[in-house]
Amino acid sequence: MSNRPITPLLDKVCCPADLKGLSDDQLKQVAHELRQEVVSAVSETGGHLGAGLGVVELTVALHAVFDTPRDKLIWDVSHQCYPHKILTGRRDRIRTLRQEGGLSGFCKRSESEYDAFGAGHSSTSISAALGYAVARDLGTAPEAGVGDAIAVIGDGSLSAGMAYEALNHAGHLGKRLIVILNDNEMSIAPPVGAMSRYLNRLYAGAPFQEFKSIAKGAIRHLPEPFQEGAKRAKDLVKQVTVGGTLFEELGFSYVGPVDGHDLDQLLAILRTVKTRATGPMLIHAITKKGKGYAPAETAPDCGHGVSKFDVATGVQKKAPANAPSYTKVFAEALIREARADRKVVAVTAAMPDGTGLNLFAERFPERIFDVGIAEQHAVTFSAGLAAGGQKPFCAIYSTFLQRGYDQIVHDVAIQRLPVRFAIDRAGLVGADGATHAGAFDTSFLANLPGMVVMAAADEAELVHMVATAVAHDEGPIAFRYPRGEGVGVELPEKGVPLEIGKGRIIQEGKRVALLSFGTRLKEVREAAQALSAEGIEPTIADARFAKPLDEDLILGLAREHEALITIEEGAIGGFGSHVAQLLAERGVFDHGLRFRSMVLPDTFIDHASAEAMYAEARLNAADIEAKVRDVLSGATAQAARRA
Amino acid sequence: MSNRPITPLLDKVCCPADLKGLSDDQLKQVAHELRQEVVSAVSETGGHLGAGLGVVELTVALHAVFDTPRDKLIWDVSHQCYPHKILTGRRDRIRTLRQEGGLSGFCKRSESEYDAFGAGHSSTSISAALGYAVARDLGTAPEAGVGDAIAVIGDGSLSAGMAYEALNHAGHLGKRLIVILNDNEMSIAPPVGAMSRYLNRLYAGAPFQEFKSIAKGAIRHLPEPFQEGAKRAKDLVKQVTVGGTLFEELGFSYVGPVDGHDLDQLLAILRTVKTRATGPMLIHAITKKGKGYAPAETAPDCGHGVSKFDVATGVQKKAPANAPSYTKVFAEALIREARADRKVVAVTAAMPDGTGLNLFAERFPERIFDVGIAEQHAVTFSAGLAAGGQKPFCAIYSTFLQRGYDQIVHDVAIQRLPVRFAIDRAGLVGADGATHAGAFDTSFLANLPGMVVMAAADEAELVHMVATAVAHDEGPIAFRYPRGEGVGVELPEKGVPLEIGKGRIIQEGKRVALLSFGTRLKEVREAAQALSAEGIEPTIADARFAKPLDEDLILGLAREHEALITIEEGAIGGFGSHVAQLLAERGVFDHGLRFRSMVLPDTFIDHASAEAMYAEARLNAADIEAKVRDVLSGATAQAARRA
Repeated sequence: MSNRPITPLLDKVCCPADLKGLSDDQLKQVAHELRQEVVSAVSETGGHLGAGLGVVELTVALHAVFDTPRDKLIWDVSHQCYPHKILTGRRDRIRTLRQEGGLSGFCKRSESEYDAFGAGHSSTSISAALGYAVARDLGTAPEAGVGDAIAVIGDGSLSAGMAYEALNHAGHLGKRLIVILNDNEMSIAPPVGAMSRYLNRLYAGAPFQEFKSIAKGAIRHLPEPFQEGAKRAKDLVKQVTVGGTLFEELGFSYVGPVDGHDLDQLLAILRTVKTRATGPMLIHAITKKGKGYAPAETAPDCGHGVSKFDVATGVQKKAPANAPSYTKVFAEALIREARADRKVVAVTAAMPDGTGLNLFAERFPERIFDVGIAEQHAVTFSAGLAAGGQKPFCAIYSTFLQRGYDQIVHDVAIQRLPVRFAIDRAGLVGADGATHAGAFDTSFLANLPGMVVMAAADEAELVHMVATAVAHDEGPIAFRYPRGEGVGVELPEKGVPLEIGKGRIIQEGKRVALLSFGTRLKEVREAAQALSAEGIEPTIADARFAKPLDEDLILGLAREHEALITIEEGAIGGFGSHVAQLLAERGVFDHGLRFRSMVLPDTFIDHASAEAMYAEARLNAADIEAKVRDVLSGATAQAARRA
Repeated sequence: MSNRPITPLLDKVCCPADLKGLSDDQLKQVAHELRQEVVSAVSETGGHLGAGLGVVELTVALHAVFDTPRDKLIWDVSHQCYPHKILTGRRDRIRTLRQEGGLSGFCKRSESEYDAFGAGHSSTSISAALGYAVARDLGTAPEAGVGDAIAVIGDGSLSAGMAYEALNHAGHLGKRLIVILNDNEMSIAPPVGAMSRYLNRLYAGAPFQEFKSIAKGAIRHLPEPFQEGAKRAKDLVKQVTVGGTLFEELGFSYVGPVDGHDLDQLLAILRTVKTRATGPMLIHAITKKGKGYAPAETAPDCGHGVSKFDVATGVQKKAPANAPSYTKVFAEALIREARADRKVVAVTAAMPDGTGLNLFAERFPERIFDVGIAEQHAVTFSAGLAAGGQKPFCAIYSTFLQRGYDQIVHDVAIQRLPVRFAIDRAGLVGADGATHAGAFDTSFLANLPGMVVMAAADEAELVHMVATAVAHDEGPIAFRYPRGEGVGVELPEKGVPLEIGKGRIIQEGKRVALLSFGTRLKEVREAAQALSAEGIEPTIADARFAKPLDEDLILGLAREHEALITIEEGAIGGFGSHVAQLLAERGVFDHGLRFRSMVLPDTFIDHASAEAMYAEARLNAADIEAKVRDVLSGATAQAARRA
């Protein structure tokens, strides 16, 4: 491994206890070596690079000063946890990050006692830390005990209402709690919102030098306000800060801004806080995403998510794409529609790049709204846009749409407002693992009265579904599509609206009908091809709609086949359950139908390639083949009768 | 109708246009008469009294100054909308409030063009208003056009992160938008959180008189800051306010505090705002919930929700209870458990009374946490408590739990943390209507790996389920129970933990098995009794668990009966769908089973009595009877074959 850095001091650090005996200068050396190790590891695995590099010093300082794992260190989102993993006994596996069977790219309680709280979605850390702090103060914590609770949260994550709810509650309770605001002016995209502007103002006029001298030379300036806990003496704090008002109004003591890459400052402040804090504290650290590795520092996204790369040049090794991604196909289709219809507008919750809406923004800067990491607001804001006569496309990943569920029910569905939900990352997503799986959207949307729910079988279908959503003005409509490349079909010049609630027959066969909802259609086709060698010629249909169901199609398939199998990239309660309900209500089961519903299994599937995850989920072509053979042989039924 | 007030001026006001010609003194008279009319109407119907009384002057002023319905007036939660309904052409139906076929107790788009955005849940109004404001400025609004967007939001609603997300986005966009903070120091319960304390400080030192004189005598003080829009001159605003910093930091111009019951002040300020505002404005109005009706003003909850009452005395006419409410049974069971186990703690999201946890708070004030209207935080805070070794009971109504869905998936289920979800108001709830129906919790919880989902069939079962939840420390567990009284069964001395995933046979019968999940069991028993007169003796079972399913029980029922019917108080995708999946996978349908799943219909059901709503949902005893007859006659199956 020629590119591995020389890290003599880091080599001696197996766990945080090993940091305790080191001098501050040695800690600086550890930080330096740690940064090199992170770059080296991610160059081999790919992953989140910039976020980790931005918190190298913070990670060293926190583990040097606090007593993890008794002190609970909670990383918000936790894609910045690679340095933390290296320092907490996982260096030997750091080059397995995000690989099947390897370390998770996020904190994970089952992986290490140092991962006090898992994450993946943003803005949960203050709530979790407050829970720990309260549990500690109740005096009934388990043997090992709970010490300090420390949340490290980025400025982007502060745009989520959940973080505010937690600050509001923490400020009210007044318990000792440490929140470190890791302010890098970046979440995934440049941050938006008034809070971001506010944070900017907080440190715009404050040279670090001044604060640095105070932190280094005159720590006595700090104690008094802390001693007063939640009722900190505002004026005194102002001596060492340039603002902090907003956090103070919410009941926090504010310290900052701090240079988050200056270990002298960080160590001095954390030591003081550890000794003196009584109530909730917010330490405002300014960091740079990608810090210390030029290719990341200079990248537009500061090395947010990278493929494997060459350490010397920073050049990423991306496999050539065979087909455009669903994300890009969606974005380009929406741009085409928006050209023809001025009412088409787009809403993203801090994911303009991930959703492809950055392309839309280039073309229609006045018609895209990035609301921040604020899915609840995104949905109801879209409902307001729809009530005002616009055609809003609210583009949110399946897993993040969970955060706007009540708003979908209450503000969109009950009012039948024509909000269009573009649901990317539907199904299993690969290296991001269970927290990012898009498993539940079909089930939580398709049971809402008046909702239309579609899944694209391929990228050409996606184009038509975008057109369908533009045309459908009678109520809400959602369409889901997966992460990654399309299957390579030819794209239509222009989307043509589909008839609502109508599926399509792909191939006429006999004995067994395979009814697909979504991009498993490719696997269904492969399975059918393999089966044909055995003389089994399945009928294949693409449902297109989980709601409303194509009742004629489904009842026809049931009537004309011995067996009907549904296949979808979602959990139970979705498409297959709706089909089962239809068949039951119409009495189709009364006299027998070999019906099976292939859904995601009842388990959270760990990160791996999407292909491997689907293999574990038993939803690949081979699994469909096996299911067909099993059903037609009647083996299952006989087994059930014997049972 | 002897108690109807004399309202000569109000009688001439059919819609807001009729207010335009009135003098300010006449508007005061309208407000006076309107208050009397609200009291009189609610005395006949019951409903939300205090909230409406608190905004009488505000309602008159808004409709007098702005041009509704072109200007979009959005009431947060909207239980305070009765005066608004009376002024907007619905006075003739105001005594049908919350009755079957009558006016909704909330704003409802389908009811009136003056209801710009429906609500029921809190904290959505700013998002919706911002959507309208943006739609207006896009210049593609429909013919009628969109004028001003005005959100009226209570201080309690500001504790929800969603409101903050909307403020953050609105402050960023800088568009003309009017937010009226209706600060009555009350939501449903006394408010909690640092924000509430902050609002208190904002007007603690500010006598209205001073501001009043400015508002009346020298309106010229106001214009300048507004002309600068989002970049308002802070110092100048401070001349007429005592603070407002937090809102200003988020990009709003702040005006206040204003006496929300002084029409002179309100009219002057609203007229100025209407003329001059360019960016987002926040008007901080101080009001009193229940204002002007002594019995409401002096009630602990300020007349939040009342039964029919006598206007002269305020004495409510409550029907005597036949059995304790599920809510009370839950609370008392939890208190008993908490006595025995110090780790039992409780979390509520601003509903201590509604969830019964006020009783718990009396006994264990240190072990209950009211987090404000903040369901997202409530769930993850509970997860943190569980990670810290506590046994948190997170008690949230079914419909509001939708707001914490992502946190349930991401922070609780994936981490298998033993949070206990006590889900009140499961199923249809009566007068609060569709926005408050607990329809979706079983479907959105039961498909989460590792989640245990129970429903209580009666109040004794609920006691056992509380004990089961205390005992279950391996992962998350949820139990649902309805609004209202129990069925009157004897309560056990002490709850006994149920075996996880085991149901019970209630009555052995033949031909048809009725498998109930939840309190429809009572209806199932009634149906069975009626059927027995016809010689049909159904087997009755109580599933207790939607997850994990009692497979032995269910497969046994399927084997031993011609027909199996599931019954639940929830939407498709829940218990019945899980049963169907099991039956399909085990090949039970292969050779025929008359299976039916009775669930809530695919429609949002309007307010009425719960009994009437269940009749519409076709889930009452008579409907179960009919279903059994239908299934056993085989009529459905034959019809399907003919189709």
